[in-house]
Amino acid sequence: MPFPLDRQSPTPLVQQLTDHLQAWIEHQRLRPGARLPSIRTLAREQSVSASCVIEAYDRLVAGGWLEARHGTGFFVAECKPASVHDDPPAWGEAVDGSWRQFREGHDDLLKLGCGWLPNSWRADAELAQAIRQVSRGNPQDLFDYCPPLGLASLRQQLHKRLAAVGIAASPERILTTQGASHGLDLLVRTLLQPGDTVLVENPGYYNLYNLLRQHQVNMLPVPRTADGPDLAELERLLGEHRPRCFFTNSLYQNPTGTSLTPKVAYRLLELAREHDLRIIEDDIYADFQEGPATRLATLDSEQRVIYLASFSKTLSSSLRVAYLVADPALLARLAELKMVSGIGTSRFAEQVVGHMLANGSYRKSVQRLRVRLGQHRAKLLGQLERYGWEVFCEPHGGMFVWARVPGRDVASLEQLALHDSVLLTPGSAFDYQGASSEWLRINVAYGQDSRAQAFLQQAGLPRESVGTGSL
Amino acid sequence: MPFPLDRQSPTPLVQQLTDHLQAWIEHQRLRPGARLPSIRTLAREQSVSASCVIEAYDRLVAGGWLEARHGTGFFVAECKPASVHDDPPAWGEAVDGSWRQFREGHDDLLKLGCGWLPNSWRADAELAQAIRQVSRGNPQDLFDYCPPLGLASLRQQLHKRLAAVGIAASPERILTTQGASHGLDLLVRTLLQPGDTVLVENPGYYNLYNLLRQHQVNMLPVPRTADGPDLAELERLLGEHRPRCFFTNSLYQNPTGTSLTPKVAYRLLELAREHDLRIIEDDIYADFQEGPATRLATLDSEQRVIYLASFSKTLSSSLRVAYLVADPALLARLAELKMVSGIGTSRFAEQVVGHMLANGSYRKSVQRLRVRLGQHRAKLLGQLERYGWEVFCEPHGGMFVWARVPGRDVASLEQLALHDSVLLTPGSAFDYQGASSEWLRINVAYGQDSRAQAFLQQAGLPRESVGTGSL
Repeated sequence: MPFPLDRQSPTPLVQQLTDHLQAWIEHQRLRPGARLPSIRTLAREQSVSASCVIEAYDRLVAGGWLEARHGTGFFVAECKPASVHDDPPAWGEAVDGSWRQFREGHDDLLKLGCGWLPNSWRADAELAQAIRQVSRGNPQDLFDYCPPLGLASLRQQLHKRLAAVGIAASPERILTTQGASHGLDLLVRTLLQPGDTVLVENPGYYNLYNLLRQHQVNMLPVPRTADGPDLAELERLLGEHRPRCFFTNSLYQNPTGTSLTPKVAYRLLELAREHDLRIIEDDIYADFQEGPATRLATLDSEQRVIYLASFSKTLSSSLRVAYLVADPALLARLAELKMVSGIGTSRFAEQVVGHMLANGSYRKSVQRLRVRLGQHRAKLLGQLERYGWEVFCEPHGGMFVWARVPGRDVASLEQLALHDSVLLTPGSAFDYQGASSEWLRINVAYGQDSRAQAFLQQAGLPRESVGTGSL
Repeated sequence: MPFPLDRQSPTPLVQQLTDHLQAWIEHQRLRPGARLPSIRTLAREQSVSASCVIEAYDRLVAGGWLEARHGTGFFVAECKPASVHDDPPAWGEAVDGSWRQFREGHDDLLKLGCGWLPNSWRADAELAQAIRQVSRGNPQDLFDYCPPLGLASLRQQLHKRLAAVGIAASPERILTTQGASHGLDLLVRTLLQPGDTVLVENPGYYNLYNLLRQHQVNMLPVPRTADGPDLAELERLLGEHRPRCFFTNSLYQNPTGTSLTPKVAYRLLELAREHDLRIIEDDIYADFQEGPATRLATLDSEQRVIYLASFSKTLSSSLRVAYLVADPALLARLAELKMVSGIGTSRFAEQVVGHMLANGSYRKSVQRLRVRLGQHRAKLLGQLERYGWEVFCEPHGGMFVWARVPGRDVASLEQLALHDSVLLTPGSAFDYQGASSEWLRINVAYGQDSRAQAFLQQAGLPRESVGTGSL
């Protein structure tokens, strides 16, 4: 299957490859049911990057030409696409890069940089039981719309949970959202206008960058240090610009795994007061921490902090249940937008989560996750040191380790990883401008997989060539 | 409990009433657990509208001062709100009016104008079974994010359903959304800029008006006739303005219940071609029709029509599963926004719906609904005629009848309805500018309730005083 690819052509290689494959299928040189070469094989044969093959296969799956079969690879679809004249979707840049991890069809690769825990770690029995109980309960939960602020019984549970970590939020200050990203979207649409300027952490959460870009909001990057945001740079930016707000993760920041120290937190709130800055504290890794921790919403006495949290990381990304806490006037505007833009959240999903909060099964399952994550993190950190990786800062909790092999560029690491069937999430995805970076986000939950171990060991540097070690 | 209300004060009556009630609770003149007077009683005592009392009670529930107990009324909360210094949310206009039907606490009133079917009509056993089956199935459905376009297996089912009504849409042209409102939101954000002008049907869907207003889009109203949109007015508006698109319900339009005729449909598509107008066909009542019907998406040969449909009306509003069909280039942009603004839909909910499509239980349950709706519609139309109501146009399907008592204003009807424990959705909610209207939307599924019958009979005019009858 050698296709002639024209490297001088204005048509991108990925489109050329897609077109060639599609033509072969149309002309039956690849028959229905036939298995396509593996990503690595085709990348080698055509002398293109593995990303290019992944992208081409994805487009053909989206176009109905190929089928991705769980764990076994890509196959020519049994029937031709219904509408053969449709162009395959022209995925934008954001979908090309960051969303690759959400696509179907790469189940054979270990997603070492992904943002979720393995399903085998999750509370499957408890969640399934809660779902079945709600399905047998009040028919309202099966059929009805949810009230604007969210299900009252869930907000009551959330109020108690927040009180336990020192955040005083009465139920009427809590709004449920369909994932924290939905909460961020409601906030951006309500608080910001195109042309406004905000502060973001860098490296940080790529979907927030995408969202702000989509809304034509200017971002000023605040570097993330081991103690939280870099306050000197933050103060300088506050002096020179008039940013509307600052988006931050206090605990186990994505992607660095670092947490805010009390000293930085106090000074940050002081600066916020001086410059009348609103802070949006995205605390989606909150429940990976047991007991009290340094959070801005806990210290805030003037409703300057908007707090977001979610059940996607600890319980289920499928249910889409999250929430935010804001002052009542803002909350009313957010609730109105929530209704206007989607008539609210899923009552069923909220009842399921409320059920697990009320019967204690959520608390117990998160406790198990914390223990397991802690064991895997400790093991991985030891291995990374032995294998010659540099770790940005040893995290005390959460899912992520931010690490690099000094001097190794990501493209060569990506190639090496694919040889071990490991898919990396490029470090550039966590830069607010997509700048290339040597750093990689590693999800500790996948670190002990034999594929990850093979890659991490091969990619590392011999001990003697490692420089200054971790910061 | 007589409060001194100042009718000359700039403070709205509803706020005065809320403040008085809150003060009584704070000073323990109303003790925890005490039952509040019924809406009718307090409205009579204070000489205010029932809407005013409803609003005040709602605010106090939202503020944690009152509790609404299913079917029994409003009670003083057992414990004071956690944060007594929070103001109750200052609900905006949209939330005040149209969203009242979504609030908790009016379970004692029959919502005769609501937009959903009674839970007792729904396929509860089949839905609960599908939920339990999915909960025991693939753990991915319990835990994982959904791919950008939506679950592939569901989109495959939707492709087949669409083919059955003559809409050729390959799975890669289908995007799932969390309710049709979410689809409309994605479209408005992608296709329109603040200041743009669009055409809307009038009367029409209030949430669309709210959404367009929220996005600062100008609306031009196209009157709805018994045959579909008023083409003369539409053509005039196309000539004078350059609207970007036209939003329409083809079947069983909300609120008039009217359907597009083939003649109007063809001419509408001609006009759209001449003026390069995009049409957004919101077909959420599609499944209330069996077999072929006149739809723009069926006739459209140039991808000018964007088609939306939903499972909220027929299966469940709680699950939030809907979809839209658009050309691939637009679909890719919508999918990107969908991910950026919420990381997709609920995989669990989509799997449940896909399951019911695949095993035929959805088809059978919708068939039952159609029969039952047809019987109730026929009965209600006969009664309305006998009771002296005027019907805009006798609908052939769907949930709604658009009716009035000539010469009776809505305020007096609302008052009369509350005496019979019936809550009306004011006709003004369906006007694009909120203009008052004599017309009422009646949901036929609730028409045979004894409260509805009492109201409809009392509100009607004696036969001899009825004028020209139905249009």
